[in-house]
Amino acid sequence: MTTGDFASTYPERLEQAASELRSLLGARASTAMAVRDHHSHGESYHPSALPDAVCLPHSTAEVSEILKISAAHEVPVVPFGAGTSVEGQVNAIRGGITIDLREMNKVLRVSAQDLDATVEAGVTRLQLNKTLANTGLTFFIDPGADCTIGGMASTRASGTTAVRYGTMADNVLGLKVVLADGTVIKTGSRARKSSAGYDLTRLFVGSEGTLGVITEVTLKLHPLPEAVAAAICAFDDLRGAVETVIETMQLGASVARIELLDDKQMDAINRYSKMDYPVAPTLFFEFHGLNDQHVSDQAALAQSLAEQHGGREFQWATRLEDREKLWDARHDAYYASLALRPGCKGFVTDICVPISRLAECILETQEDNLGASFPMTLVGHVGDGNFHMAYMLNPDSEAELNEAHRLLDRMVTRALAMDGTCTGEHGVGYGKIRYLEQEHGPAMDVMRAIKRALDPDNRMNPGKIVEPQKAATALPTGR
Amino acid sequence: MTTGDFASTYPERLEQAASELRSLLGARASTAMAVRDHHSHGESYHPSALPDAVCLPHSTAEVSEILKISAAHEVPVVPFGAGTSVEGQVNAIRGGITIDLREMNKVLRVSAQDLDATVEAGVTRLQLNKTLANTGLTFFIDPGADCTIGGMASTRASGTTAVRYGTMADNVLGLKVVLADGTVIKTGSRARKSSAGYDLTRLFVGSEGTLGVITEVTLKLHPLPEAVAAAICAFDDLRGAVETVIETMQLGASVARIELLDDKQMDAINRYSKMDYPVAPTLFFEFHGLNDQHVSDQAALAQSLAEQHGGREFQWATRLEDREKLWDARHDAYYASLALRPGCKGFVTDICVPISRLAECILETQEDNLGASFPMTLVGHVGDGNFHMAYMLNPDSEAELNEAHRLLDRMVTRALAMDGTCTGEHGVGYGKIRYLEQEHGPAMDVMRAIKRALDPDNRMNPGKIVEPQKAATALPTGR
Repeated sequence: MTTGDFASTYPERLEQAASELRSLLGARASTAMAVRDHHSHGESYHPSALPDAVCLPHSTAEVSEILKISAAHEVPVVPFGAGTSVEGQVNAIRGGITIDLREMNKVLRVSAQDLDATVEAGVTRLQLNKTLANTGLTFFIDPGADCTIGGMASTRASGTTAVRYGTMADNVLGLKVVLADGTVIKTGSRARKSSAGYDLTRLFVGSEGTLGVITEVTLKLHPLPEAVAAAICAFDDLRGAVETVIETMQLGASVARIELLDDKQMDAINRYSKMDYPVAPTLFFEFHGLNDQHVSDQAALAQSLAEQHGGREFQWATRLEDREKLWDARHDAYYASLALRPGCKGFVTDICVPISRLAECILETQEDNLGASFPMTLVGHVGDGNFHMAYMLNPDSEAELNEAHRLLDRMVTRALAMDGTCTGEHGVGYGKIRYLEQEHGPAMDVMRAIKRALDPDNRMNPGKIVEPQKAATALPTGR
Repeated sequence: MTTGDFASTYPERLEQAASELRSLLGARASTAMAVRDHHSHGESYHPSALPDAVCLPHSTAEVSEILKISAAHEVPVVPFGAGTSVEGQVNAIRGGITIDLREMNKVLRVSAQDLDATVEAGVTRLQLNKTLANTGLTFFIDPGADCTIGGMASTRASGTTAVRYGTMADNVLGLKVVLADGTVIKTGSRARKSSAGYDLTRLFVGSEGTLGVITEVTLKLHPLPEAVAAAICAFDDLRGAVETVIETMQLGASVARIELLDDKQMDAINRYSKMDYPVAPTLFFEFHGLNDQHVSDQAALAQSLAEQHGGREFQWATRLEDREKLWDARHDAYYASLALRPGCKGFVTDICVPISRLAECILETQEDNLGASFPMTLVGHVGDGNFHMAYMLNPDSEAELNEAHRLLDRMVTRALAMDGTCTGEHGVGYGKIRYLEQEHGPAMDVMRAIKRALDPDNRMNPGKIVEPQKAATALPTGR
């Protein structure tokens, strides 16, 4: 799709494809600019990129037909969920057909006995949890935004509860996927475990639409804990907070959430959410257990560890409304940061390191960031060793964007030197693509071989994660 | 490797390869019959199949050289660990070079802070846990046998503790793998989670040497629980036992082991281990917690559920020696079954279904087995919906083997109709290969495409899991 001749026929091929899509979907296939524009970006700083057409299928069979049209006319496809991705995953950087899965939003079945559910890809996590009300079950993965389950699977998302309940890699039992040629496959089963061949479920989870379009997801659910308590605790310094986390994990306390926020983030939250938390490095905890005694035993353990590491008093939230207030403040952290600099654009990093290196990694990063020309805040899912620096950039300043990229480059180099990863949960899209060679080395050839095997024409969300050939033309990197 | 011309040159190519292997490894490359014979089989009923040569490498670099020799002369390679596999995974059904990894048996590093370790593939799980003594950590996956960690990763093994601590898919953070052409790659990292591209770790876990040879494994460890209690409870019938399991899981009690044994298995254990357990369907439980109170709260919950479902009194084992006696009896279940029929050969099945279907699946299976001409016993990792029927066959009777296969065929069909899998933890090898099409349908084409992409010559443990082409010649199935 890069040779001149081929590119020159794109307008006719696209027109053919659009016409067939309209026959298939009627008004649910659109080339209207407003629709294309809405689908040109996620929630990140990466430049928007318009798809040529947008489809709103209602079934896996329709997605299969769309893929067949894409194949016949060699037009790229880009899957789209809630549009909350942050690495340009949904930006149509090579044009083509965006498949918006939001109208495939049925919860297909829930089994309280098996603690599982099957949903269409466009179901959002809040929608699913609303459906689960009164079942005693919940879907625990919480990346903050109300993402679609299909999008979360595609990105291998996680969030605040991963420390206890795992990531999407741990919580997807099976998928329905439409391949590049329109073939529909099922991966996995409803069995809790299987050794029956290659783990295709885990291959498609995190593949960001580059190997196929996920249309259904079978998920593990969890029983709602009988007892829950949350607390926050401010620390004299970051190191003490991180040491508390390491020791809490090591003792096997089954903490359900353990989040770090730096002093600047706490200040931003106080301003935005009208709170009066101490402006200091702070841990947010949540404990889940079988009864109040279990929860308070675990909490007491964490509290005593905190006290040994410069933690000040715990502020408890055991009532549901108090917990919600606390976690709402945490959820709003990003918006609170954006409000620090009205009109700014957020640029969010996402490294993850072994937790033994976390304090060092955070402190070196903060040292490196001294004197940056824009404000920034830190939040971390520290039980997993994952943290985000959010930079508040002037959207019109190329100098600030370049500075942000330089800081990110050094942060990723630091994380990789510590045996970590360039992205803990946000995925690659095209924002992180330039770090993959550095992170994976020759294993990238395996990813390329798989991409070639499943998408030989490079039509599936092209330009994201990996190109079929190593000697690809220079990629847009937003830089 | 199937055309006549090519096959006719095999002896010369093999001699060349063997000569180069001797130059590389000296006495650690062998073509002696005793060595080949030892490496011709695992622990199953499948007919032995001799490799042509056996290598004992000491490093990943040596494995890489072996693969280069295999590539140059187009000779198959078969990885070999402890030889405990049960689906013919290590049988050299196309001949070639067996790579025995037992002398790559160093624990390379342990991090108590990060709860992880990196080991060479030939380290066994008991060896690892011995190394971990006094660290407060343990590697929890327990398939019974003292398998190598590399073998467990290759087979996606699990066992009694998977209900709480997961399978190898959940406990491997990263791998070192040697590819078909000798290229060495690293997958994953020591970060607890990552969204940085395709999940190659999970692709190689469970691939049984068909995509590459695993030489190093980075594993999650777990803190030893502060408090542990175990118990057994006999039930009036199987259904009551399984209902107890379902409700225990649903309440979120963090049971660490929950094992079902049928009356015949209990009888076998009593005879073999000189115990006097009731001869009735029985659950073995283990609870892990932060303190004795947690453990006893969970146990009390399970006990009250058991009482509602025809469970008789709990026999407790809280002291370490009593627990060990109980789990030794469970571990010896298979040998106890074999002792029911001296001189017999065991044939073990391994289906896994959603637990809501487990009672039905077991009862239908037992009904179907009535009148079988050989003794059989049942053990199940029932928290996961996984159970094994072990058939005690006369090794000289083809009629019994055929009868066992017919029972297995129907059991697999039953499991798949219930949204389950033909193998929960034993893997495919060539013993289960004929069920994969039935289980995965068109997804098998994706597995074949991946196999072709990574092993175009079909040299990597050929004839196991999947062939590169659909129209492969009939495979040996042990039938």
